[in-house]
Amino acid sequence: MPRLLILSKQADKYNKLIDEAKLPQLELVSTSSVTEAGSTGAGCEIVFGEPSLIRKVLPALTNLHWVQSTWAGVEPLLDPSLRRDYALTNARGVFGELMSEYVFGYLLAHERRIFERYQAQQERRWDNAVTGMLRGKTIGLLGVGSIGAHLAATAKHFRMTVRGYTRASEDCPDVDVYYHGDELLEFARGLDYLVSVLPNTSVTHHIVNANLLNSLPSYAIFINVGRGSAVDETALVEVLETGKIAGAVLDVFEQEPLPQVHPFWTTPNLLLTFHTSAPSLPEDLAFLFAENYLRFINGEELKYRVDFERGY
Amino acid sequence: MPRLLILSKQADKYNKLIDEAKLPQLELVSTSSVTEAGSTGAGCEIVFGEPSLIRKVLPALTNLHWVQSTWAGVEPLLDPSLRRDYALTNARGVFGELMSEYVFGYLLAHERRIFERYQAQQERRWDNAVTGMLRGKTIGLLGVGSIGAHLAATAKHFRMTVRGYTRASEDCPDVDVYYHGDELLEFARGLDYLVSVLPNTSVTHHIVNANLLNSLPSYAIFINVGRGSAVDETALVEVLETGKIAGAVLDVFEQEPLPQVHPFWTTPNLLLTFHTSAPSLPEDLAFLFAENYLRFINGEELKYRVDFERGY
Repeated sequence: MPRLLILSKQADKYNKLIDEAKLPQLELVSTSSVTEAGSTGAGCEIVFGEPSLIRKVLPALTNLHWVQSTWAGVEPLLDPSLRRDYALTNARGVFGELMSEYVFGYLLAHERRIFERYQAQQERRWDNAVTGMLRGKTIGLLGVGSIGAHLAATAKHFRMTVRGYTRASEDCPDVDVYYHGDELLEFARGLDYLVSVLPNTSVTHHIVNANLLNSLPSYAIFINVGRGSAVDETALVEVLETGKIAGAVLDVFEQEPLPQVHPFWTTPNLLLTFHTSAPSLPEDLAFLFAENYLRFINGEELKYRVDFERGY
Repeated sequence: MPRLLILSKQADKYNKLIDEAKLPQLELVSTSSVTEAGSTGAGCEIVFGEPSLIRKVLPALTNLHWVQSTWAGVEPLLDPSLRRDYALTNARGVFGELMSEYVFGYLLAHERRIFERYQAQQERRWDNAVTGMLRGKTIGLLGVGSIGAHLAATAKHFRMTVRGYTRASEDCPDVDVYYHGDELLEFARGLDYLVSVLPNTSVTHHIVNANLLNSLPSYAIFINVGRGSAVDETALVEVLETGKIAGAVLDVFEQEPLPQVHPFWTTPNLLLTFHTSAPSLPEDLAFLFAENYLRFINGEELKYRVDFERGY
């Protein structure tokens, strides 16, 4: 009978949801306390929860087989000094829809001049200047995993052209053209919108640098919903201050929360959100766990397995 | 050999586009001047352009068979004192995509708290409050013609539930439930978003009244991209001022441009745009004309025929 430790700030919610799912054979322990987890959860084969908490209890888990993360990013568990003798799966497939709402919400706010129209309203000014539109525009996706695939589908719904930059994969039917390796600047040229959904790995570190940003047209908008480490923040401030690109929207940063003295707070044409683009919804994640649990007890391959070396 | 009069503020653009389409047999006259149109265009069988201009030249057109409007709304030509001895077709099918970008742009701005997040940025405040989402919400469409059908398709893309209120038709596959006649309040109950795409007719006059607005939940958002006459503006101000609904976005008004003294400029939780939701794009409209012209010379039924009595 497999024992599951739920270790999460939302332990109560997850406990209720997983209990209601009536998963076969499962025995359940849940807590939001690392100390408690280290004692009552020590013998559990399975752990479900936040990587930042799980990291602290990792040495105490004597019978660990599988960790299901509630986050997409599992950086706290990738530290080379930590054990890797278990299957680590992350949250994937559940963020695409919300990311898509975020990205297209901000792109539409830009095209529709939502802030400018509001300004006109404040001034009692009938501002009927024609707006832009998504239709016919070209979006470039840095990374085409499950989130990128969702963004591509929404872009196609709005009749856009989609470019994808990936390591090797070319399996998303909504991407019109793929780019790889040293084709990064070619990928960027002529893009209306550049969206990074890249995870934090050594390969993606500062991939959005001065070179890449300067290859974008002056009317381009950059959006980052992946990880802050993918962006050279100094280079981004520079291109925004000099008007080399039209604007940017950032949900993630090299340091979070963003330090009070960071130039981003006042960089022109930059909109900040605060790691809110795709909240982890307990219902989505409990469903994802349940799906993978059935695979686990049936001896099938787990979905969303993380490669410790690759980092995602 | 059919003769076409293009009478439009954008006559030059339309002339070029229709000339390039190399339509068979067509002879072309184009102008933006009503006076000139009355002389050089008098013998034309076909007129393509803005209803407001065409109205003025209507008596001089001795050989008129067909008018293709560049607008969706053809009110200037519906005056009962005017002749109706010709086929009138309006612009349809071309606004759906742009309307959809507008409506979902504003719905996402609401759910994503785009204005509030910007305020937080101004205050250097890490505002990571969870946002709302479109997924799972219910949208009600007042009117399900070609624009409504586009809105329904986008709503489905975002996994929403779609209700449609129509006179009789039930032919849009993306509408989950239809309502008709006296089911208006039932249609409104529980809606997250109410969107009017209704034309200006005697039947739709002030259909969005105090009764209907008060049937909406307090968290509902109302958007009007149809015609201003569908809304009882006094009732809308009242429900917004008393917080009976959460907000509204208006692109159209009973009087346009909106008078400087109108309460809408400062009504709480109301965003105004200025008849910009779906600009008439010359490329789209020239294509629409060309399509209908081929039907005309082949003796086929014209698309988008307006019923003078019904008003659309």
